[in-house]
Amino acid sequence: MTPVKPKRVPRAIREQQMLDASVEVFARRGYHPAGVEEIAEIAGISKPMVYLYFGSKEELFVACIRREANRLMEMITQLVDPQDPPKEQLWSALRGFFSFVSDHSGAWIVLYRQARTQGGPSAREVDEMRRRTVELIAAMLSQAAGMRKPGEQAVTAAHALVGSCESLADWMLDTPGTSAETTAKRLMHFAWPGLEELMEATRAKRAKR
Amino acid sequence: MTPVKPKRVPRAIREQQMLDASVEVFARRGYHPAGVEEIAEIAGISKPMVYLYFGSKEELFVACIRREANRLMEMITQLVDPQDPPKEQLWSALRGFFSFVSDHSGAWIVLYRQARTQGGPSAREVDEMRRRTVELIAAMLSQAAGMRKPGEQAVTAAHALVGSCESLADWMLDTPGTSAETTAKRLMHFAWPGLEELMEATRAKRAKR
Repeated sequence: MTPVKPKRVPRAIREQQMLDASVEVFARRGYHPAGVEEIAEIAGISKPMVYLYFGSKEELFVACIRREANRLMEMITQLVDPQDPPKEQLWSALRGFFSFVSDHSGAWIVLYRQARTQGGPSAREVDEMRRRTVELIAAMLSQAAGMRKPGEQAVTAAHALVGSCESLADWMLDTPGTSAETTAKRLMHFAWPGLEELMEATRAKRAKR
Repeated sequence: MTPVKPKRVPRAIREQQMLDASVEVFARRGYHPAGVEEIAEIAGISKPMVYLYFGSKEELFVACIRREANRLMEMITQLVDPQDPPKEQLWSALRGFFSFVSDHSGAWIVLYRQARTQGGPSAREVDEMRRRTVELIAAMLSQAAGMRKPGEQAVTAAHALVGSCESLADWMLDTPGTSAETTAKRLMHFAWPGLEELMEATRAKRAKR
């Protein structure tokens, strides 16, 4: 019989526990005041262990951002069916996005309110996620309008949509009693008519050629 | 004959010169790396004089934000005629906003990219400007729909619109060769159809009562 080692946790799981604790502490305290000591305590490990795994507080922060950004992107990609009509795709994406923000408000605070303000590698990580999101939306709009490559109009509309998502995510978190579903619905009402007109105009222009 | 005092500059003008220099330096260097020495040099006065007028670097920064925020709000208020139809009002406001960002990119960088990220009094100053802007837009939309007080829908739409303005301002500054006029036009195409539907739906609901 081999002896029982109750405290042996696989590396991958331990890493996730540290990231969970980090997001919680960064979201509550802010990047600068957040202490690695508190993060270690919540994760149930020693402070040197955190440094062993992540190197520095900044690298730990960047790792948090990367995980949360990927999580958000993957979730939305899974929810959106490219076979659906564009309106359904947008609705699935918006509902998914606001649910994520509502369910993981700490992650959103770290991603949006903190990372972008730190500059350096963490801001670059978020900018990259934002860039990919804008590209995805612009591609979806262009495809729906029968174009192979996103036009300038689609890119601008995608930037506008991402900006309104960010603004409403903040508003939702600051407005108690507002559900993700309601927020997504209202943004749908605001954004869909303009996007639909843009796609129709593009289609009509192409048909004329 | 009284002797000529060539260096005597009235306090109000000197203050504006210091603020001009500050916005320029803060925008170029960022808040933390910006030095009061360089600001004093550009304004053509001594460093102790800057402290005498503004107290500290933080207070100088807050004074910059207050001036630029007020300048932006005043300019837009002057451009928008409340007697115009809502579509004209929005168009005037958007064109004014993107022209301001284009003509005073330093001011926008300080207001949007730096102040919000500093926290404390400077972030509060910008939040206050944002709050006033959302209120103004929500009031305009509600009035156009025949309501005396802005409803929840109008407030949400105003938040979404402000977010898309911020996002497109950033995009415009990052995209060489894009004019304020073009950016305003594209945002108009994106946002107006949804806003118009919202106002019509509100009017129809009121008429049914």
